[in-house]
Amino acid sequence: MLQESGVTQRLAHHIVATRWEDIPLPVKHQAKRSMMNFFAVALAGCRTAPVEIARRSLAEFSGGRQATVIGRAERIDALSAAFLNAAGANVFDFCDTHLRTVIHPTAPVAPALLALAELRQVGGADLLLALILGNEIQARIGLAISPGHYSRGWHITSSCGVFGAAAGCGKLVALDERRMVWALGTASTQSSGLCECLGTAAKSVSVGNAARNGLWSALLAEQGFDGPPEPLAGAQGFYHAMGETPDLSLVTDGLGESWQIMATSYKPYPCGFVIHPVLDCVLDWRVDNPVAEVTRVVVRGHPLLSDRTDRPNISTGRESQVSVQHAVAAALVTGKAGLEQFTDSSARDPKVLALRSKVEVVRDPAFSTIAASVEITTADGKIHERSQPAARGSEVNPLSDADLEAKLRTAAAGWDPCHDIAPLIDAIWALDSSADVSGLASLAVPKG
Amino acid sequence: MLQESGVTQRLAHHIVATRWEDIPLPVKHQAKRSMMNFFAVALAGCRTAPVEIARRSLAEFSGGRQATVIGRAERIDALSAAFLNAAGANVFDFCDTHLRTVIHPTAPVAPALLALAELRQVGGADLLLALILGNEIQARIGLAISPGHYSRGWHITSSCGVFGAAAGCGKLVALDERRMVWALGTASTQSSGLCECLGTAAKSVSVGNAARNGLWSALLAEQGFDGPPEPLAGAQGFYHAMGETPDLSLVTDGLGESWQIMATSYKPYPCGFVIHPVLDCVLDWRVDNPVAEVTRVVVRGHPLLSDRTDRPNISTGRESQVSVQHAVAAALVTGKAGLEQFTDSSARDPKVLALRSKVEVVRDPAFSTIAASVEITTADGKIHERSQPAARGSEVNPLSDADLEAKLRTAAAGWDPCHDIAPLIDAIWALDSSADVSGLASLAVPKG
Repeated sequence: MLQESGVTQRLAHHIVATRWEDIPLPVKHQAKRSMMNFFAVALAGCRTAPVEIARRSLAEFSGGRQATVIGRAERIDALSAAFLNAAGANVFDFCDTHLRTVIHPTAPVAPALLALAELRQVGGADLLLALILGNEIQARIGLAISPGHYSRGWHITSSCGVFGAAAGCGKLVALDERRMVWALGTASTQSSGLCECLGTAAKSVSVGNAARNGLWSALLAEQGFDGPPEPLAGAQGFYHAMGETPDLSLVTDGLGESWQIMATSYKPYPCGFVIHPVLDCVLDWRVDNPVAEVTRVVVRGHPLLSDRTDRPNISTGRESQVSVQHAVAAALVTGKAGLEQFTDSSARDPKVLALRSKVEVVRDPAFSTIAASVEITTADGKIHERSQPAARGSEVNPLSDADLEAKLRTAAAGWDPCHDIAPLIDAIWALDSSADVSGLASLAVPKG
Repeated sequence: MLQESGVTQRLAHHIVATRWEDIPLPVKHQAKRSMMNFFAVALAGCRTAPVEIARRSLAEFSGGRQATVIGRAERIDALSAAFLNAAGANVFDFCDTHLRTVIHPTAPVAPALLALAELRQVGGADLLLALILGNEIQARIGLAISPGHYSRGWHITSSCGVFGAAAGCGKLVALDERRMVWALGTASTQSSGLCECLGTAAKSVSVGNAARNGLWSALLAEQGFDGPPEPLAGAQGFYHAMGETPDLSLVTDGLGESWQIMATSYKPYPCGFVIHPVLDCVLDWRVDNPVAEVTRVVVRGHPLLSDRTDRPNISTGRESQVSVQHAVAAALVTGKAGLEQFTDSSARDPKVLALRSKVEVVRDPAFSTIAASVEITTADGKIHERSQPAARGSEVNPLSDADLEAKLRTAAAGWDPCHDIAPLIDAIWALDSSADVSGLASLAVPKG
């Protein structure tokens, strides 16, 4: 039930009181991994149509050249940069994922912090601490109302992300507890974003707003812009309006002991997570059989695999992201499962189309959602089997640091093969010893 | 129940198809009255602390001097102007009110239209038509989920206002039906605003955003930024997330036949509506008895008057707006019930305090909410009676055109006694014959 429990106050206290020294080493390292993954997905999405249209429109109103737009030479004001970089990072749903809430936590938080770091002097450890706390606060706020909040239609990355951005930015500008509550209040009244908009440009607006408005909430609070004492659990607050019956213990229990960023996964492939173990099998087999002619593929997996992705007939890049037939066919044809395998042109590639019709999906409740097996029949009549008990990127089989570096390298090269991304990779690993990270985002802009 | 009824499409069709010639004359005139009232409340609120802090903050990020900030010489970009003028107009809750939904319809719509009119050439009839349609769409969207939506905690002026601003601005930029649906979709995913924030600066943010984001939704749609086909009634759309079980017939029945702007009231006093008939009585008596010493006041009214406003001990301007004791005392002391009677200093004025303790409230279910009577005892022992069956500003006793002009004059003089507001008043009454309204808002800026 809803209570006037001081839950916002307790979050504010945690944000304000936590110091870099309080963070365990693995959590600090995970924050760098989240930042690496963020730059990869932000580079991947930065020149897509929704981001391009929004950028041109915002440029009409923007005054500053304060902050970096990832992947672009043009700079823009800090609020708009936060918007654009968040919108771009989430456009392919290739982000990190907090699996218990399905929040993509870094997309709304990191862009707000990076834009702020171009306005004020911010050290690398402070940046990582703010990212850890921002991710923590939004995940905990979302946990209390999951899965009902998302089922109701809320795009939880947006609706909770605005709190994460406000918390992280509030930490960077050193708000006191009272002002941190105000920042979360001003964030609460901007919380929005509907799943109905998924698959359209409009989806990018709520993610962008989460970053922009979270940043702005912190800046307003710094200037004395007040809010209510209990915006989350108050009688007419966030949870009452947007959350049914929250379990507030999930917001506050174990604060400072467990870290939600440790429950974050990074995707190796830009498609539905249930397809991932299938791709692991197919790509592994393809390495050994690059030129074999495939006549049939039987995919076996958890019923969700069939329920969500048994789509042999699709025609757009976006649909291809939730078609196991497409994913398998494109991976077999190209030997890859990156962004270029999930484009409109890939969805219409005659070779891929031909193979798509040869892929069958078998429901098998014996499999977990992160497991799958495939049987590939080749023209010589042989049947080849591969299985994956735990998909790459799942919690028990996380991407390695090298995998994340490779993901960033691939994304950077996708736009500009000459873009030397090594300095960004080095800078991320060295963040905790940097005194000024104002130049970090600009390393995600190709030179010349 | 929720249905995929094409309700958004039907609204879009209505917005696109309706012409100035289709609007009945009284509706056209009411739009001018709404505009008059808007400028009054916008001038009243334009220099309050929340608007000031927001303006200074936005100015850091704003590039343009595209649009007028009401009451100020400094110009700002159009999106920020829409935000600031909406936030200012709603800060005192002195706006027009659509009583069935308690939406303050013009605050989020007019500022978006006026900012747009400084970017593009817009005629006066087009401006009024866009205002009428914007108010229509947001009121109808809100009607379908009233009163449950507001009770759930949604600040309905904000949450529905963003649709009104998008509809009105979409009309001004001549979106086709498909793009109008997109604009409403991008608006839907920005719909937000919590009543928990009422009484704090944070409240102004959601109202400002409604105007800014509605305007931006229309501009994005114009550029091809797409959205879902049914953002309102879709399975994960606005109504499912924010509205329980909507009565969709209230959205679409009688479109083009009835006009919601005709169900809008304008407030004569900046305080709770149930106090208004009491003030009518007191001010009427005070005119005839300007120097009498009052020893006791008995107020009689509907039980809501007592429930909501029986607050003899208050200490802030905001609290004073919902204290019948304060309103009566301040009106007796000063002979007025304007903004200066509901400030912090008025709430602490010793003369007002002394009189406040002499005001008693009697619950009487025989009264309607718009009726009241008072018995005023003077030092000579005489008892004076006054009664008001229908408060000024109520639907059956609306403010006259002259009342609205006076409201605007008083608001303008409140900031700058030298501000000649006559040109603005003349321009509003002549709007339908103006070919270019880009200079309208600037008439609400004192010269020099």
